[in-house]
Order: sequence, then C-alpha cells, then structure tokens
Amino acid sequence: MRKPILVLLACCAAQFSFAQQDDSTTLRRLADEVLTNGKAYDNLRVLTKTIGGRLAGSPQMVKAEKWGEAALKAAGADKVYTQECMVPHWVRGEKEQARIISNRRDYVAPLNIIALGNSVGTGAKGVTAPVLEINSFEELEEKKDLVKGKIVFYNYKFNPKFIKTFRSYGDAVRFRSQGPSRASKYGALAIVVRSMSHSTDNHPHTGGTRYNDSFPKIAAVAIGLKDAEVLSKRITNDPSMKLFLRTTCQMLPDTIGHNIIGELRGSEFPDEYITVGGHLDAWDNTEGAHDDGTGCVQSIEIIRAYKALGIRPKRTIRVVLFANEENGLRGGSKYAEQAKANNEKHLFALESDAGGFTPRGFIMDMSDAQRNKIKSWLPLFLPYGLYDFDEVGGGADIGPLHNLLGTPMAELSPDSQRYFDIHHAASDVFEAVNKRELELGAVGMGALVYLVDKYGL
Amino acid sequence: MRKPILVLLACCAAQFSFAQQDDSTTLRRLADEVLTNGKAYDNLRVLTKTIGGRLAGSPQMVKAEKWGEAALKAAGADKVYTQECMVPHWVRGEKEQARIISNRRDYVAPLNIIALGNSVGTGAKGVTAPVLEINSFEELEEKKDLVKGKIVFYNYKFNPKFIKTFRSYGDAVRFRSQGPSRASKYGALAIVVRSMSHSTDNHPHTGGTRYNDSFPKIAAVAIGLKDAEVLSKRITNDPSMKLFLRTTCQMLPDTIGHNIIGELRGSEFPDEYITVGGHLDAWDNTEGAHDDGTGCVQSIEIIRAYKALGIRPKRTIRVVLFANEENGLRGGSKYAEQAKANNEKHLFALESDAGGFTPRGFIMDMSDAQRNKIKSWLPLFLPYGLYDFDEVGGGADIGPLHNLLGTPMAELSPDSQRYFDIHHAASDVFEAVNKRELELGAVGMGALVYLVDKYGL
Repeated sequence: MRKPILVLLACCAAQFSFAQQDDSTTLRRLADEVLTNGKAYDNLRVLTKTIGGRLAGSPQMVKAEKWGEAALKAAGADKVYTQECMVPHWVRGEKEQARIISNRRDYVAPLNIIALGNSVGTGAKGVTAPVLEINSFEELEEKKDLVKGKIVFYNYKFNPKFIKTFRSYGDAVRFRSQGPSRASKYGALAIVVRSMSHSTDNHPHTGGTRYNDSFPKIAAVAIGLKDAEVLSKRITNDPSMKLFLRTTCQMLPDTIGHNIIGELRGSEFPDEYITVGGHLDAWDNTEGAHDDGTGCVQSIEIIRAYKALGIRPKRTIRVVLFANEENGLRGGSKYAEQAKANNEKHLFALESDAGGFTPRGFIMDMSDAQRNKIKSWLPLFLPYGLYDFDEVGGGADIGPLHNLLGTPMAELSPDSQRYFDIHHAASDVFEAVNKRELELGAVGMGALVYLVDKYGL
Repeated sequence: MRKPILVLLACCAAQFSFAQQDDSTTLRRLADEVLTNGKAYDNLRVLTKTIGGRLAGSPQMVKAEKWGEAALKAAGADKVYTQECMVPHWVRGEKEQARIISNRRDYVAPLNIIALGNSVGTGAKGVTAPVLEINSFEELEEKKDLVKGKIVFYNYKFNPKFIKTFRSYGDAVRFRSQGPSRASKYGALAIVVRSMSHSTDNHPHTGGTRYNDSFPKIAAVAIGLKDAEVLSKRITNDPSMKLFLRTTCQMLPDTIGHNIIGELRGSEFPDEYITVGGHLDAWDNTEGAHDDGTGCVQSIEIIRAYKALGIRPKRTIRVVLFANEENGLRGGSKYAEQAKANNEKHLFALESDAGGFTPRGFIMDMSDAQRNKIKSWLPLFLPYGLYDFDEVGGGADIGPLHNLLGTPMAELSPDSQRYFDIHHAASDVFEAVNKRELELGAVGMGALVYLVDKYGL
C-alpha cells in the first residue's frame, strides 16, 4: 500500500523539479532583459530631473501624472487610465527660517530646518521662545509644567543598534507624528524634531505629522542632525537663549488627484487582479528618487519586460502609481474602496516603497500557507540575491486593499542601510540610485508576480 | 541500547543550543559596540582625506604606513610592528593625454583616459596612429594582419547579465592584463582598453597590466565608458582618423615597503595565528576608499571592538595591512614566505578586499568539512544579513598563505552592485562609503574570527 504513495511523491518531485527548471529559465530571461534593456533607470531620470518633488495637489504632480500615463503606454500596457480621488493640498510656503537668539556673538548661523508635512505655519512674524529639550515622551510628561510658552525640541536619536533601519524609523517616528499635539497639550508654541536619520550630513528630513484636534495646532519642523547637536549644546551652555522659528506652510482645501493605472490583461482570468505599485507623490524638498520614484519605475518595468519577452499573464496585472502616500494615503484608500465597490477579485498586491537599493527579499502579510508557498520558490530567487522572506509587513498604499478585501500583500525589501540617509531629504536625488540595484529590484518583483500569477496563492 | 545514544544526542543538542545562545549574545554585543562606538569610519576619513591614493613606493604610502601603525596602536593592539618587503615602484608621471586627430572640426574634446599600472609611457612626443577596434581576442587573431602600426582599442563590454559583478570583472579583466602584449605581438604601437565597469559616468578605471617579455612593451591606457562610445563611433564614421596618446609613466627600480601588523595575543594558543587584513596600497588616481581602505579599517576595528568588550582570543589575532596588492602582491607573498620560514601555525586567514558595502556572506577556499563547520553557524550570522557562504574564493593577499601553508581562507562578500562603478577610478572616495555598511562588514568579520578562534576549524 505504501508503494503507490512513494511513486506518486516521486512523480510530483519530478514534475515540480521540471516546473522549477522551466521557471528558472523564464526568470533568467527576465533578469537578462531587465539588466540589458531595462528602461527603469531612464524613466527615473526623467521623473526626478524634469519634474522632481511632486506633492499631492502641486503643479508638479499634474506633470507627474502625465509622465506616468506616458511611461505606462510606452511600456506596452494594454490599457492606461486614471482613477480620481480627493487629496490633501498642503503647501510649504516660503523657505523656513530658524536661528538662535542670544547675546552671544557666535550664535549667528541659521539652523537647517524644514517644516513637517501637514503642519501649520508660525504666522508671518514667526515664533521666538525658549527651548525645552526632551528625549522621550516620558520626559515630556515629567516636565509638562515647564512646557508652556516654550518651543519643545524632541532630540530622540535614531537607534543605531537595529540592523534593519526601518526598525529605527518605527521607533523614532512617533516624535514626528505625535510630537506637536503632545507638546501643544501642555502649552508649547511650536516643536522642533530631530530628523529621523543616521546620515552624516545636515539635511533636515521632513515627513507628515498628524494633529490631535483636541489641542491647538502648532508649527512643527525637523532639524538636520548636525544642527540638532548645535542646538542641544547651546541650550546647555546658554539657558537664556531663545529660538526664532518662521514657517508659512498651510493646509489648503482638498483638491483632485489621480491614481495612474496601467494593465496587462490576463489571458485566462482577466477578472482576477494582481496589483503592483509605488507612489507617485514625493516631498517637495526632494527629487523623490528612492521615495518613491524607484517603486514607480520598477512597477512599470514589469510591464515592459513581460511584453518584450512575450510573457502573457493568466491574471490581469495592474500597475498602480498611487496618488498620495506621503501625507494622506488617499490614493491607496480610493483604490481599495473602488475595488470593493466593484466587487473585484484581488489575488495579490505587491508594492515597492522602501528604496531602490539591492533587493534582499520581501516582507509579507498573508496566511502561513500563502507565505510557505512563496517560500517554496526560494531556490528560484536565490540566484538574484533574494533570501529573506520571513518578515511580516506590507506596503502603505496596498494596506487598505489588504484591510478591506483581505488581499495577501508583500513589499520589496531592499538593503536598508542607506535609505534613511536620504529619506524625505534634499539628498533623495537620482544620483543616489544605482542603476543595477534598481533593476535587480524590478527583477525580483517581476519574478514574484510571475510565479504568483502562474501558480496562484 | 538505543536510549543512551538518544540521551547523548539530546544532551549535545542542548549544549550546542546553549553555546549558540551564548555566542548569539556575544555577537550582539559586538554589533552594538561597532554600530554605536565604531571607529572604522573616522579612521577611513583620515586615511582617504589626509593621505589619499597610496601606491607602493610612493611618499603617500610612507604616510599610510605611519597611519596604520598609529591606528593599530590606538585600537589597542598588544604589539604593532612592520615587515619589510621589496615592492615595485611604478610612477604615473604627467597627466595622460588622448585626443582624436582628424580633419573634422567637431573632434576636439580630449578623451578621458588613464595609464594602466605597470605600463610603459609613449615617450614624451606621444604616439599618433590609426585605431583598430577589437571586441575579443578571437577577433584580434582574425585581424592580426591589420594590427601593425596601429593603436588597438579593446572595447569589450562589462557583461550586465552576471548578478555578482565580480564575475563580470573576471570576464573582462583579461583585456587589461593580457591586452598590451597580445597586441604588441602583432606590431601594435599602444593599446586602449574599455574600463572594466558598468558605471554611468566617464571616469577611466586603471589597474595593473602584465607584459609578456617576449614582445615589446607598449603603452596601455584605460578609457572612460562614455568616451569609449565616442571613440567607437568616430572610428566607424571617420576611418581615416588617428588617435594621439601621450603617457609618461615608468617603472623605477624596486624599493622598500612594509606590511603593517598588529596583534592581539592569544590566551591559550599564542603561537597559533588567525590573520585578518586588507591592503594598504591604493591607486594614485583614487582615495582608495573602498579599495581597500575599508578592508584595513574593518580589520583594525576588530581589535578595537574586542578590546572594548574584553574579548580575549585563544589564538593570536594578527591584523595585517598588506603593502602591495595592486601591482605586485609583494606584501602578501612576503607574509606567507615569512610564515613558512618561521614554521608558524596558521589556523585561518580572512580578508576584506571587495568593497565596504553591506555584507552578504563570505567566499571561502577550504575543505568541505571546514566550510560545513562555518555554515553550521549560519543562524548566528543571519540577524546581521549574512547568508551566503557557498562561493569558492579568497582574498588576493592571503592567497600566498593559502598556497604555501594550506591555510583555509575566506573573504568578506559585500553587496557587489556598486563596486565596479568606483573600482580603480577617481570616484573611489570616502563619500562613496556608507558608515553603517562599513561597520556591518566589520561586525561580520569580527563574528567569524570570534567563532573560528573559539571552536577551531
């Protein structure tokens, strides 16, 4: 009775091995195509160098949408269309100012700061106040009686001990998101937050903040790491010093934005979707290269390479350039709502929004069975340097789809060491992207989409 | 009878697990120390920015030797000393010149070239000759009758299909090393070789060449990738054009150099050695940051971190900054000869000479049993992103030790995508090194040395 089972297993093994050989050949063709004829890098050059920063609601974003449609068409998408959504419309206004006010003559250099996204301005005259340095929310609570009338300076350091830098970010970002309202609760006039980075330069790193409507909205800026040290030292050495801050940013009424969508129509199950994307918006003080131009051009590259190789997916592959990740997530939310309203069947969603560095694997949010199925393909990914399939997570823009429809999701997990050097800073430029690293990310994404499309999940 | 064996296995498993837990804690302390208090990055800044390029025999190399001794002492080595060896003394001379000679007016811009290391000059008047473009040695043989009196231009492209870029290098570098003599054999006056790189800029990449004494030594230069395209197009469009080349480099008589050595004395087996190193010399047209300043400072960092943490090795750890990898390998050869002459027992040798990028594993040249022992430690390395222990290879400088004494050897295997963008080019500068990537390499090396010292090999 046992023999047939053994024979069956042997047959399966032979079949699987044959299938893997076949897949291995296809992935090799995919890699060769992307590494030899890839257009991701050239696409990124155009997006970053001719358009640059592109916040939702900005004129640059209108240009970026046109660029995205054209790039998807050029890549060979069967169908390109837009999906309208309302987006926040925050504007930075004039260049931010910060300087130390003191009788001491050596305190003259301006500090390198940048307003946080969604924050209110100080008013045209600015704010001048003493500074209270705080290194934890616990310390804020302890010193709450000292906060009134002051500028609170959150100087919490990015923890260098986490090997994956997204953990350091997750640990530190609460000061940017919650810091303004938690200080305002006790009467602070404004806040300064140490940039979420362990870069060796002095660029300030912006990023969205969220106000708690129970408390007055106060101005909020990030400061470069070198100037965070300068400020901290001067507070210690000259307790009577004050800080002058001036920002003129403001939130305007919501406006219209668009997700830009390109499809490769499925040959067998055209009504089943695999979503692949990145977000088109980017902070205005950057070129939005790694965040997230790379995710956009890698996603577009999948269509181009499939077409070039004659790979016809069974399911419909939808490449989505999301409208508004940075300060609202309205694009991803709209996409999910629409998918639900249309009763669409979504097999899988994949995002690239962690930088265009060499890929190391995927983070995933799905059932154990689904994860194990993907992990069984590990031998196919190893030749391209992708080995890490164990972490739990997924992309911000596909999160709403995952939440609303239960769609299993994954995000490309590139090497993270350099990402927070440039994240949301003026140093996030085209030149910080390596052509081959970018392309290898597209190879990994294209491979995963290929296998999920072929074998289901 | 079977029970005792099972009990024994269970005990072993428990012990091993306990040992791994213990090791895991030690490696975590090592990583925390290096990522928090590491000196590798500051050491690298001094080496690259105050000394810069440092070929064997150059005044900069004398400074670099002093720097190495001081850095090893500052790191806490028990003993620092030098090991004298004779080194080649090649000098570049005046800035190289190359331009297209043609009646066409648009051919005026000079081409970006650099003389190959060890090459002879053209003479003060330079060489002017027609150019024969060649894309393979097979093509050279086919066209051997056309070579006489010409400049041969090897325009073989770096193959983008290899995922690990060292394979592309291994594939292309024969044109640099063998190209001059193979062309000289058929009467060529000089050669130009396309730089071994897939960078997107125009820096030429130098590197050593080797003459075959059977044929006249002819001048040899590398050309930047953009100018390689320019040159190729112009040869096609204007076959009557000539190329003017002028180099004044020359090989002077051998001179004295030194390996710089720092030791941490072993507590149990002081006469057994583990060698860890990088090479101190670097091409004069670079800052020698990734090649191989990073290998030097990572090796030194192991001593510093061990001392800071109170890790006392059982065997003697020898950090060696080798004198002359780039154009002679005399430092590594001398080190091995001396080890053999002294009848030293060398347990293991480790090198870092593949760039200071995020580590992915180690390449190794040793017995299967030794490799499997190291691979059994994989769970200890995975938290730091090192997973790839399968490739065969080792460092150039420790090769002679491996060959003469049979010492098992390994080389840190960092992410290779960016390495050949900057390798041997003016772009190999301090700014191309990321602090954390550099430090993670030191963590991986320090961890491997720790485990080999503790458990043997």
